[in-house]
Amino acid sequence: MKLVTFLHRDTVKAGFIDGEDVVVCAEGPSADTAVLDLIASGDEGVSRWNGMAGSADRLPLKDVRLLPPMPRLVRDVICVGKNYHAHAKEFHNSGFDSSGKEETPTVPVIFTKAMTGLIGPGEAIRSEVDPTGTIDFEGELGVVIGKKAARVSKEDAMDYVFGFVIVNDMTSRELQRRHSQWTIGKGLDTFCPMGPWIATADEMPDLPGVMLQTFVNGEERQRATMADLIFDIPTIIETLTATGTLLPGDVIATGTPAGVGIGFNPPRYLKAGDSVKIEITNLGVLENPVA
Amino acid sequence: MKLVTFLHRDTVKAGFIDGEDVVVCAEGPSADTAVLDLIASGDEGVSRWNGMAGSADRLPLKDVRLLPPMPRLVRDVICVGKNYHAHAKEFHNSGFDSSGKEETPTVPVIFTKAMTGLIGPGEAIRSEVDPTGTIDFEGELGVVIGKKAARVSKEDAMDYVFGFVIVNDMTSRELQRRHSQWTIGKGLDTFCPMGPWIATADEMPDLPGVMLQTFVNGEERQRATMADLIFDIPTIIETLTATGTLLPGDVIATGTPAGVGIGFNPPRYLKAGDSVKIEITNLGVLENPVA
Repeated sequence: MKLVTFLHRDTVKAGFIDGEDVVVCAEGPSADTAVLDLIASGDEGVSRWNGMAGSADRLPLKDVRLLPPMPRLVRDVICVGKNYHAHAKEFHNSGFDSSGKEETPTVPVIFTKAMTGLIGPGEAIRSEVDPTGTIDFEGELGVVIGKKAARVSKEDAMDYVFGFVIVNDMTSRELQRRHSQWTIGKGLDTFCPMGPWIATADEMPDLPGVMLQTFVNGEERQRATMADLIFDIPTIIETLTATGTLLPGDVIATGTPAGVGIGFNPPRYLKAGDSVKIEITNLGVLENPVA
Repeated sequence: MKLVTFLHRDTVKAGFIDGEDVVVCAEGPSADTAVLDLIASGDEGVSRWNGMAGSADRLPLKDVRLLPPMPRLVRDVICVGKNYHAHAKEFHNSGFDSSGKEETPTVPVIFTKAMTGLIGPGEAIRSEVDPTGTIDFEGELGVVIGKKAARVSKEDAMDYVFGFVIVNDMTSRELQRRHSQWTIGKGLDTFCPMGPWIATADEMPDLPGVMLQTFVNGEERQRATMADLIFDIPTIIETLTATGTLLPGDVIATGTPAGVGIGFNPPRYLKAGDSVKIEITNLGVLENPVA
């Protein structure tokens, strides 16, 4: 099931994609938390929405404006840094890495990304928010947690995964470097594009084969499969829950492959007028203009 | 006004302290978000609760069990690192500082602390959650944001402050060092004691004179005033809102003074049976046993 939240005639609604249509499962004041509420209600929620396919209103997908699939996140996005070998190397050599002496981490590097930066497909990334003009993209696979999770082993980890979504971990490289901890450099307003939908885990049967590509103005800049991750999804979940707790609706951005702007010398930063497009197998396309 | 959330006969309620009593302003299913909802409703909310002082039920403060003042946080706690000169020096020299080469930061070091670690006054900090046994305290003044805030100047910053609360930024020093970004080392379950109440800003007229003291098993280990902060509260708010947005209910932990366990050689870590007590002018006492 592909879950979406969307605007139709200035009203927020939520539902799922069925072919060329959207099945409308929620509208009204709580529609902006309907997908989060569905996730928190577990398998029962998905069955209930599935059961509405025959009776609920339908709208042509092309007639709605997609919002972030969860417009209100449960908290800040949890992110993994330096989680592809070639990217760890390009970042370490760029001079912007304030995360320590190691080129390749021996344990996952975890930070958070402000939920207040969330935008949906097609919404503009506002370049004027970064006074340093060092704007860079990071195409990433996001994991959506389905159940409260603490002390979860690698073997059991996938039981806690509800689904997947594309995340663009937009970054101000200069603010990332300057503040040493990454919260500021990752947390700029409009710097968290997410969408277009959350696919439930059953739609992603071959995770290692899932391909991620990022295009800037149509030029391919990143290409990798999930088999290239240094720390795979079960390892990330085991690490996060060894000492902490994950919540239903938590999004974990699993890291970005090589090809970001600071991998070039001189760096190729984004500027107003550019377009960033991320495509992941079965997760559609997340494209955002830079304004 | 001193806002509290509490348990009374297994029921969650919220209200404010009036002398030896608690005035009960909210109970029922939404009581655990009543203080957050009050903050989000602005000055009107405080006036409304104030107006209930004569008519609402009262309970003796000694008969209730205080919970964290906001049991459900709006998101992870925003924290400032290395924000007192003497602590910046002791931390830098400890070998646990993965935040860069500078002893004293030239811009605020910002990270986040998992909301899932939240506990209230008297609740146990569970030592077994940290497999490395390097548990340390950090007594801190927490600032509670009252209004959505973006692009706020130092001059206007205090208009966005709703109030203040004591935060204990409990840390696993080894996990903080090992993961280089601090989210894991700061985000352990039970590692975010907060309380006992949120005092509205009018109760804290002389901020620079506000004193913070931390005691471990009765021994004074930290003592500082807010005049000792490297980056004061207006500067922190200006920095956070220069590129990001703060939300009503956001808590900013402003940093810890010198005297933490890793300031000693060898480090003096906490262990089961210890007690950590933080006292701040007009904010009461936050005491938690280590179990």
